[in-house]
Amino acid sequence: MRIGIDLGGTNIKAGLVNDKLEIVKKMSIPTNADRPTSEIMHDMAKLAIDVVREAGYTMDDVESIGIGSPGTCDSKNGILVYANNIKFFNAPMRAEIQKYINKPVYIDNDANCAAYGEYLVLDKKPAVFAAVTLGTGIGGGVVIDGHVFRGFNGTAPELGHTTLDMNGEKCNCGRVGCFEKYASATALISQTKAAIEKNPDSILAKVAEKEGKVSGRTAFLAEREGCPICKAVADKYIEYLGIGLVNVINNFAPDVVCIGGGVCGEGARILDPVKAYCAEHIYCKYVEQTEVRIAKLGNDAGIIGAAMLDE
Amino acid sequence: MRIGIDLGGTNIKAGLVNDKLEIVKKMSIPTNADRPTSEIMHDMAKLAIDVVREAGYTMDDVESIGIGSPGTCDSKNGILVYANNIKFFNAPMRAEIQKYINKPVYIDNDANCAAYGEYLVLDKKPAVFAAVTLGTGIGGGVVIDGHVFRGFNGTAPELGHTTLDMNGEKCNCGRVGCFEKYASATALISQTKAAIEKNPDSILAKVAEKEGKVSGRTAFLAEREGCPICKAVADKYIEYLGIGLVNVINNFAPDVVCIGGGVCGEGARILDPVKAYCAEHIYCKYVEQTEVRIAKLGNDAGIIGAAMLDE
Repeated sequence: MRIGIDLGGTNIKAGLVNDKLEIVKKMSIPTNADRPTSEIMHDMAKLAIDVVREAGYTMDDVESIGIGSPGTCDSKNGILVYANNIKFFNAPMRAEIQKYINKPVYIDNDANCAAYGEYLVLDKKPAVFAAVTLGTGIGGGVVIDGHVFRGFNGTAPELGHTTLDMNGEKCNCGRVGCFEKYASATALISQTKAAIEKNPDSILAKVAEKEGKVSGRTAFLAEREGCPICKAVADKYIEYLGIGLVNVINNFAPDVVCIGGGVCGEGARILDPVKAYCAEHIYCKYVEQTEVRIAKLGNDAGIIGAAMLDE
Repeated sequence: MRIGIDLGGTNIKAGLVNDKLEIVKKMSIPTNADRPTSEIMHDMAKLAIDVVREAGYTMDDVESIGIGSPGTCDSKNGILVYANNIKFFNAPMRAEIQKYINKPVYIDNDANCAAYGEYLVLDKKPAVFAAVTLGTGIGGGVVIDGHVFRGFNGTAPELGHTTLDMNGEKCNCGRVGCFEKYASATALISQTKAAIEKNPDSILAKVAEKEGKVSGRTAFLAEREGCPICKAVADKYIEYLGIGLVNVINNFAPDVVCIGGGVCGEGARILDPVKAYCAEHIYCKYVEQTEVRIAKLGNDAGIIGAAMLDE
């Protein structure tokens, strides 16, 4: 058994993962990100201990602990170098956790962990695998020959921060027109809100009002209810997503690229046109093609991938 | 000793490369790309035999033959899958060359070979290395842990076909606004020509007239002669190049990315502002940074890299 910890800006989640890559027990506590980092790390260790006990096991049953963290990790030295949203800076994660639990501790970026989790549950392991998670931003991970690809300094791959439009919207990263400004869930929500504002009497506007909020799925929900303006919202979003995925495919040529995040709950409505876009726009058409898929694990990918880290 | 063959749309070049990665002898013949591919492959083998003889060696001194080709290669099976400019389609390159020379034959994309050559001549081998060649298009190659990274189907990485502007200029690849539409030598020549057209009485226009043509270096030459409009041409080009390189860095996090091609003969005039651009715009600033360098080998990189292929 292994412990996977998903450190987020809002919650810390810990899961006990068995050899079949199943989460046996999962627990969550608030991060309270404004606290001193040593307190947060103490709580992470405590949660790991709790989840093992609550599952009816002891630390003797646990092989290792893996942590998926936002930001930049130094996996080799077990350090969380920098995470903006939880104000960590060169936090000695491995050493701190090992103060409380005497086990190997591994750490990696949360998007890398999610990609690794999605990779591990595939029956046939691709030589090159990429995962793109459409959330608040866009997280990306690549697995090459079974190893999480981190680049030389642990920062790769920031798939969400590849340019789509160099004359486009400002991104938090300091660049302009990044993939995540157009194809994250946040971006889709903005695009949907803009359509509502322009069409206040549309079915879309009514659906949003009824739901009480706009999510990445609102436009698709309204489309199913017959809203004629939703196709344009969906088409444009799918084009953005397609452009970013073609960049990933042209750069990494993965056997499989999977997309995850709430909007992927739409299934074929997203997947089919995205696949068609990629097939039409990828650079090399005369070879076996990258398969675009929807992620299997969803929110659990990060915990499972983190738990299975071994380097 | 190993033979490296650089198959181009205009010429076939072959070089005999020694263990110090020096080209002992180099020869070139016209490709005459309109011929049947079997004739071209026959001439490649003949040139390889000639270069060994002319260098004063025999085939007993030769370990292997490597071929750098434009287009998409199936390195595993030794097949040139598709090359647009020389009309090859599923050409069994390895088998054909081995009809004439009984040695191991390896094949890879020319940009991959150039990257591998540039990688091999570095004293300290980077864990992740990227090379970007600014020529007619933009060729890119990545070496990871000593191996040329080709993706699952041999098509990676098409660094020149990552988007810079999704609303931008049409690219030959069928996409819009690719890196090479803005930062290849071809693009820089167009940008320079546009500046000349707008400023027919400029020093730039006179320099171009005197040179008899516009090259990627014309704007820099005219700048040194005091042309006041050249800074804008150079600045914009360097920004394009910087955006594309930041994409490479954000995706692959290489220890070193080197840039090559004629314009890099400008040295610090190109390199310093490009480095500054990358330092300012890369995603992760709190870790050891990718070093941007100018390629060492230039035109010989392809032959040397091809010669040293061993998989």
